[in-house]
Amino acid sequence: MTAPQRKGVISHRMSTKPDRFYWNKALMSSPGKMPQGPRMATLQVKTSRRTEWVKITSEVNRCVAASGVSSGICHLHVPHTTAGVTINEGDDPDVARDTEAAFDRMVPREAGYKHYEGNSDSHIKATLVGCSQSVWIEDGRLWLGRWQAVFFCEFDGPRNREVHVKIAPDPAE
Amino acid sequence: MTAPQRKGVISHRMSTKPDRFYWNKALMSSPGKMPQGPRMATLQVKTSRRTEWVKITSEVNRCVAASGVSSGICHLHVPHTTAGVTINEGDDPDVARDTEAAFDRMVPREAGYKHYEGNSDSHIKATLVGCSQSVWIEDGRLWLGRWQAVFFCEFDGPRNREVHVKIAPDPAE
Amino acid sequence: MTAPQRKGVISHRMSTKPDRFYWNKALMSSPGKMPQGPRMATLQVKTSRRTEWVKITSEVNRCVAASGVSSGICHLHVPHTTAGVTINEGDDPDVARDTEAAFDRMVPREAGYKHYEGNSDSHIKATLVGCSQSVWIEDGRLWLGRWQAVFFCEFDGPRNREVHVKIAPDPAE
Repeated sequence: MTAPQRKGVISHRMSTKPDRFYWNKALMSSPGKMPQGPRMATLQVKTSRRTEWVKITSEVNRCVAASGVSSGICHLHVPHTTAGVTINEGDDPDVARDTEAAFDRMVPREAGYKHYEGNSDSHIKATLVGCSQSVWIEDGRLWLGRWQAVFFCEFDGPRNREVHVKIAPDPAE
Repeated sequence: MTAPQRKGVISHRMSTKPDRFYWNKALMSSPGKMPQGPRMATLQVKTSRRTEWVKITSEVNRCVAASGVSSGICHLHVPHTTAGVTINEGDDPDVARDTEAAFDRMVPREAGYKHYEGNSDSHIKATLVGCSQSVWIEDGRLWLGRWQAVFFCEFDGPRNREVHVKIAPDPAE
Repeated sequence: MTAPQRKGVISHRMSTKPDRFYWNKALMSSPGKMPQGPRMATLQVKTSRRTEWVKITSEVNRCVAASGVSSGICHLHVPHTTAGVTINEGDDPDVARDTEAAFDRMVPREAGYKHYEGNSDSHIKATLVGCSQSVWIEDGRLWLGRWQAVFFCEFDGPRNREVHVKIAPDPAE
């Protein structure tokens, strides 16, 4: 398996629900002045292969920093049914590549599936990985282990995808 | 594999812990008058096959609507060890059927297991899928992607099963 | 497969972040006097085999009891990339053993992996199981089904491991 370069392009996006989602420039430039409620953002992820893990730790941490929340919980939700989100080692890209290949062996692309769209393997992988993660926030950052990174898992690309981010501050002590 | 009709019967149930669980008719008929704390409910799911995915999105949304919570988190917990809960495509029932069959291939029913009850495959599938999900609530509904649905995953049926639902409102802003 | 005795040794550990983590003896001896914010603790788990499930339900429940929280959410996070945490049947140890063996069949130790450390199988299993769980607390205990237990899942042992525990009380009603 050759290894094309990761081409995922990730960007913040302002919410289209202004009454609930505080993700705007004014607030991002004045962290610490936000109300007590949770904040939400949407990350956009552009994938370039059918199966591709894209590391999004930095982008999620940027959302956390912009929110002004120093301790709390960060919920990540992938609103798709042929993609997922996981936490695993982010230092050596071969780990993600080995996992992509192992998933291809566990869930073959062709196996007499009945689903008319021909991507049942993608749906099955999505259930194996899961579409959400909850990560604590400490000191204004995701509280991950030394080698842990957050990965968006594409199983039916290339596509334009989204990851929803909800940042809930801990109640005041 | 023939495809018998889905026979899952789902119903709300009032909690037996009146001091903690607000799930009663009076409150359901007056949403918006509930206290700040979380609300809980139990869904009952009757399965009809050994391996069977039952879509429960509407039932969970009914709980959310009855709770009067417009934004928050909905925690789903399956208290069994041979069943799970996942989120995947709910439009074409063949996706769930293909996944059931793929799980049967990944985890064969017989493989020299030692567990005396003879349902080790069911336990293993439960760990692969997971027994809980956390879904955000927005505008009084589960905030899911367009094609996403919540499925109760039976791996050792037919049985009478439960899904616990805890609905926690966002802190006031 | 012979079955060596479980040798996992588990202990609480006081937090090294005194400004955030209330896990100290004074507070443990006076439950109910804690502030409204969440409490955190770290469990240490010493594993003795390469693949080994260690039951940690009692230890987590001890954290919950010490926190003084009677209802809320207990978040468990494994900060490693070759280990996980799951909930499954804890009565017959053969279930965990059967699952360990099934995972070895699904994800073989050797499969032409590229990762230079030679433990890609461990990383892949960690993604299949997941590195976190959120469990409700009711009546000062984890609210689990009758047969459910919490397992730390070692996939690249023996090692000294950690499980982070965050206990968030429900908002006052």
